[in-house]
Amino acid sequence: MLTCKFCGKRASTILTDTFYPVCKECFMEHFEKKVIRTIREYKMFDYNDRIAVAYSGGKDSTVLLHLLHKIEENFPKSELFVITIDEGIKGYRDDALKVARENVKELGLEHHIFSFKELYGATLDEIVEISKGRKNSLKPCSYCGILRRYAINVAARELGATKVATGHNLDDEAQSFLINLLRKDIRRIGHLYPFKDVKSELFVKRVKPLRKVSERDIVLYAYFKDLKFHEVTCPYASYSVRNFVRKFINEVSQVIPNVRQNLLKSLDYFSRKVYEEESDKEIKLCKVCKEPTSGEICKRCEVLIDLGLIDKNKLESNDEG
Amino acid sequence: MLTCKFCGKRASTILTDTFYPVCKECFMEHFEKKVIRTIREYKMFDYNDRIAVAYSGGKDSTVLLHLLHKIEENFPKSELFVITIDEGIKGYRDDALKVARENVKELGLEHHIFSFKELYGATLDEIVEISKGRKNSLKPCSYCGILRRYAINVAARELGATKVATGHNLDDEAQSFLINLLRKDIRRIGHLYPFKDVKSELFVKRVKPLRKVSERDIVLYAYFKDLKFHEVTCPYASYSVRNFVRKFINEVSQVIPNVRQNLLKSLDYFSRKVYEEESDKEIKLCKVCKEPTSGEICKRCEVLIDLGLIDKNKLESNDEG
Repeated sequence: MLTCKFCGKRASTILTDTFYPVCKECFMEHFEKKVIRTIREYKMFDYNDRIAVAYSGGKDSTVLLHLLHKIEENFPKSELFVITIDEGIKGYRDDALKVARENVKELGLEHHIFSFKELYGATLDEIVEISKGRKNSLKPCSYCGILRRYAINVAARELGATKVATGHNLDDEAQSFLINLLRKDIRRIGHLYPFKDVKSELFVKRVKPLRKVSERDIVLYAYFKDLKFHEVTCPYASYSVRNFVRKFINEVSQVIPNVRQNLLKSLDYFSRKVYEEESDKEIKLCKVCKEPTSGEICKRCEVLIDLGLIDKNKLESNDEG
Repeated sequence: MLTCKFCGKRASTILTDTFYPVCKECFMEHFEKKVIRTIREYKMFDYNDRIAVAYSGGKDSTVLLHLLHKIEENFPKSELFVITIDEGIKGYRDDALKVARENVKELGLEHHIFSFKELYGATLDEIVEISKGRKNSLKPCSYCGILRRYAINVAARELGATKVATGHNLDDEAQSFLINLLRKDIRRIGHLYPFKDVKSELFVKRVKPLRKVSERDIVLYAYFKDLKFHEVTCPYASYSVRNFVRKFINEVSQVIPNVRQNLLKSLDYFSRKVYEEESDKEIKLCKVCKEPTSGEICKRCEVLIDLGLIDKNKLESNDEG
């Protein structure tokens, strides 16, 4: 019988970083401590933050929500509330929303749900349909990412949040780093810098408390804690380069077991370099929506204009008037 | 019939970067021009260089040798000669050496062959055997890389070379970049900086004229030019993480056709950052062999001491005496 390295009880799993056999209780303690250390290392929170958790109902954000709720009990001046974005993906988001609602209710937290339909006039399913055959059409994940990020920022700000916490995990970060390199998207590597500060008061600072724990450990923690979460993969996920990258990292981990941690360290080094080089770039206000952007028109408005969901001319004539 | 984009003749292939259909002649012209542009872009050569080509007999260095020989005709003050390292790999290197000798002879160039056996007292095959079961044992490719690089530098310098040209191609560079990221070997990413200068007169500057042409184009060029080269893969290659990475890049190229070029651009950006940060690091002389190194003992001597091929104590007492 394999015994727990720390308490000598029967081991249930091994730790991802040290490969020590551990029991269920020691695994959970180790996991929680790791998240707390990550929060400290990157100075993610102040004692009096009003934290918006971006919550989808999936495994990552469910674990994040439960952990932050637990940690937050020690910080009486802090507040926690939940934002969920309903992108409008048939056969996927509805079930996730149900789980999300139940979990938030159980924790007794404020829950604010916003839908693409009410915010942008179309669900993601409708946007994907509209985009078909258009010249500048993007992948579903790109539309979703741009529109969701924008919505979360505006919602968090309007609801008085001082931080937004997202459920990005170690695998997500390692994958995003590789994807940006494969696309020579240097600028986006700068966006992944973990000490990145907001350049405008209109941006709410985003933090990723799970960036050092692997997807595997998150699933295990959720399982040991008996957390309910939405397990279905998004139907649009198959479109994505991310699948190639995920498979590759899993394969490489057979010969370089710490490959995810290594990629995170490489990312932290290089994202700082890009961030430092880009830090003097000016932030303007989007000509259309007046939200902060680095260009003339923000990505959200660019996308909505392309899709015919905002009339550019009308807005420009308003602007002149 | 698909016709050549440039001359209208029957197309034989497509260009890797633009996907234009081209005939055999236009492909070769395009390939050669690309290498010449690369040489200029990175200021690889001076008009009066004495260039050592590191030549294995494989496809990359065969194409490099033929191209440099052709280009060099326009630079009467420059000189070209050939260095080949015989690592001692049974059933592999002997055949390659034969092809190498024939090709060099045909071009009428000086040819200097050095073997691991005479330089280090053991062939690579013997080193792999010795290393088995040792505590710090490395992969065969690591031994080979360290010992070959060292040998080429000393040989080139002793033979009066002002530059060493190697056959590294676009795929090699893209793969090396990824491998170093997967291993968080930031320092080595700095070594890949294409404008890197030598930090000691004891180092001969190394250049990679083929770094922008893909493996596929090199094979095609060799085939169109009817060049003879050694086609067998090194028997030790299967040990390597490089195989995972090669397969991955090939797969990703189905969805991001320019992935190799993208990785090279990412590499050029990030390798500069590392190079700039490391450029003030002092170069010392190895305590054992007196060749330049960043530590106390150079990698070559470290490896040879570990393998019992140099007696460290004996050398240290010599040093004191």
